[in-house]
Amino acid sequence: MNYETLKISRDGAIVTLTLNRPDCLNAFTVQMARELIVAFDELDADDAVRAVIVTGAGRAFCAGMDLSGEGNVFGLDENVDPYGPDAQRIRDTGGEVVLRIYRMNKPVIAAINGVAVGVGATMTLAMDARILSNEAKIGFVFSKIGISLESCASWFLPRLVGIETALDWTLSAEIIEAQAAHAAGLARAVVSGGELLQAARSVAQRFTAATSPVSVAVNRQLLWRMAGATHPMEAHKVETRTMFDLSQADGREGVNAFKEGRNPEFGTAIRQRMPRGLDWDGEPDFA
Amino acid sequence: MNYETLKISRDGAIVTLTLNRPDCLNAFTVQMARELIVAFDELDADDAVRAVIVTGAGRAFCAGMDLSGEGNVFGLDENVDPYGPDAQRIRDTGGEVVLRIYRMNKPVIAAINGVAVGVGATMTLAMDARILSNEAKIGFVFSKIGISLESCASWFLPRLVGIETALDWTLSAEIIEAQAAHAAGLARAVVSGGELLQAARSVAQRFTAATSPVSVAVNRQLLWRMAGATHPMEAHKVETRTMFDLSQADGREGVNAFKEGRNPEFGTAIRQRMPRGLDWDGEPDFA
Amino acid sequence: MNYETLKISRDGAIVTLTLNRPDCLNAFTVQMARELIVAFDELDADDAVRAVIVTGAGRAFCAGMDLSGEGNVFGLDENVDPYGPDAQRIRDTGGEVVLRIYRMNKPVIAAINGVAVGVGATMTLAMDARILSNEAKIGFVFSKIGISLESCASWFLPRLVGIETALDWTLSAEIIEAQAAHAAGLARAVVSGGELLQAARSVAQRFTAATSPVSVAVNRQLLWRMAGATHPMEAHKVETRTMFDLSQADGREGVNAFKEGRNPEFGTAIRQRMPRGLDWDGEPDFA
Repeated sequence: MNYETLKISRDGAIVTLTLNRPDCLNAFTVQMARELIVAFDELDADDAVRAVIVTGAGRAFCAGMDLSGEGNVFGLDENVDPYGPDAQRIRDTGGEVVLRIYRMNKPVIAAINGVAVGVGATMTLAMDARILSNEAKIGFVFSKIGISLESCASWFLPRLVGIETALDWTLSAEIIEAQAAHAAGLARAVVSGGELLQAARSVAQRFTAATSPVSVAVNRQLLWRMAGATHPMEAHKVETRTMFDLSQADGREGVNAFKEGRNPEFGTAIRQRMPRGLDWDGEPDFA
Repeated sequence: MNYETLKISRDGAIVTLTLNRPDCLNAFTVQMARELIVAFDELDADDAVRAVIVTGAGRAFCAGMDLSGEGNVFGLDENVDPYGPDAQRIRDTGGEVVLRIYRMNKPVIAAINGVAVGVGATMTLAMDARILSNEAKIGFVFSKIGISLESCASWFLPRLVGIETALDWTLSAEIIEAQAAHAAGLARAVVSGGELLQAARSVAQRFTAATSPVSVAVNRQLLWRMAGATHPMEAHKVETRTMFDLSQADGREGVNAFKEGRNPEFGTAIRQRMPRGLDWDGEPDFA
Repeated sequence: MNYETLKISRDGAIVTLTLNRPDCLNAFTVQMARELIVAFDELDADDAVRAVIVTGAGRAFCAGMDLSGEGNVFGLDENVDPYGPDAQRIRDTGGEVVLRIYRMNKPVIAAINGVAVGVGATMTLAMDARILSNEAKIGFVFSKIGISLESCASWFLPRLVGIETALDWTLSAEIIEAQAAHAAGLARAVVSGGELLQAARSVAQRFTAATSPVSVAVNRQLLWRMAGATHPMEAHKVETRTMFDLSQADGREGVNAFKEGRNPEFGTAIRQRMPRGLDWDGEPDFA
């Protein structure tokens, strides 16, 4: 696919996906949301891709929703009844993007190079790691423009920084400097702008260099899904089945390689090798 | 209403609610529970109120349940069958108070000026921020008097400080000094006693000065409710509808003001303007 | 019972359970899993035991699954259909152990004296506190041998260290040094190897010296169970009933002792005195 709002480049097994509307600080549009979902679909389906880095072109990461359009700038058709039979036609676009990221089978790493406010901040919360440039500025500014949290941030933010910080950042709607965001646990590191992409690539390499692709896919999804489960028995039920299947696949090679003192050679296909135990592509209905 | 156990004062849009039994370290009684619920009802219904600060008169915040009474000092009628048709008549009173705070439409900030033990500690967990005087002492002392956690602390405490610290504080039943409580993430700041109320007021101002009242109400409730949700789809379903409604209300004014380079003028009514998407006043049955 | 893989010693009310296969770094076997479950059953049933410390013999805590066996080294019968009527016959053994720990009525403290990788790391996550020797090394190495998280780690790990660190440790499958594990919140303290057992004993004493055994049991279980509950009303329903029952048992003695300025004398029996309000021994079906 040809993307108008994104740029995609590959370095070995690591893909960099760049939000690419630098003239308007990579402001988010409905088109960008659609392109992001297609891009994640394609990257997820491509077994040669092991990890995805998301960053922004120019000096911003993403300045939030593009407010310059006409009509409902959030892309919500005001003529639809949100509780009627056409409700599917109004979906928070940021939420659709993060739900797609949530069920990715490979790690996604945010390299936040500058301003990331509104959906520019919330879209990163479903990613597996965040690295901040020291010029990054984060803002959950919704209450200052009279709207609500979106992109499932009300679910993700308390799990990343705790409920008290999540409330503080959201109710104040203030801009948070990179160091403060890092100190609160939002990101794994703060580095200079010039080191940012290399730092993100280093995380991607740590996640992929010596690991089984299927195992990474399963463990990534297990952690996200069980972070919301009510009882550890939910984990036990799924883990028993994933262990059963994986121990007869990549796990057999892993154990043999360990016994033989050699590096394992894991299968590279992911989606067709995912163990049973969970509907890895499924999600609850929107209703 | 005339309160016997509380004192209420107003400074602009910020109300200070003072636990006011200083002769007995503001010990908690069934009457205080009833008055707190009425007070939060009234403050929630008053659109001129934007935030509530809770503090204690004299040198204590709240020394826990008043144990000086006769009979069941926790106010639980021992003649009722807790599983029979009258079970509603025995409700943990601290739990009733925090469930009322949980569904507030405006921020509640604890200014903990001294000893806060038992229900004096747990009642603050449902508030949106805690500021500690350096003379504050916190204690989840239940296991030393042979009783259980109450005020829904078993739900709130692990979400505020993590499960390991929650277990440590509860199983040891020890008194925690202000600095240690802050270091563990229970509070946003520790200040001198003389600076406490101003620090709490400053948090209240950050949450209200430039924000939309309805947006603050919605985002506050979204974060608390989604902190316990099993899947981000739960957030997506609600956020889509809150964005739909708010983008046609305060959000329209917010966007227009942004485009026109002026300060927005948000609606001040809260309860009658709450978006659909969730039963904001509702809660699961007690059964 | 005579244990082949464990050693059990008692010092007053505190029992030390030692993983005892030092010649193979206490590697985990199906037999060890069975013995651990029996041991926790016995220790839970013995009212003279107030707390359990788990440590490893020799220089390791537990080097993970013993990979030296024949066939499925994880003890999973590959001839069983994991979704058929015999599915109960394949259960992740680490998961069975941690689910037993999860419903213990007394605190369990991990004294991690050395290497703790794979199930050696994950089995400690359901314990109430972790103390690390500065020689401890932790590793969630599953993705490097092609298998999945087990022992319900996908549920426990995000609750202990947050989702971002849980993802980092799991997807990298790297070995984590003691100081880094402590800094991330996995453990309460790092001490020298020579101080480890005393430090763990000190935690056990803080949890038991002046507390009601039944109250500790109830509060321990409440925190673990409500850490996964969707709404604070779940806590309110249980806490109301536990307060009702305990306020007429150990709570009455606790209040009377407080009023009379003396130390309380609490009942020592636990299991037969557990309040109603929850099925304390129950767990959801494995299905």
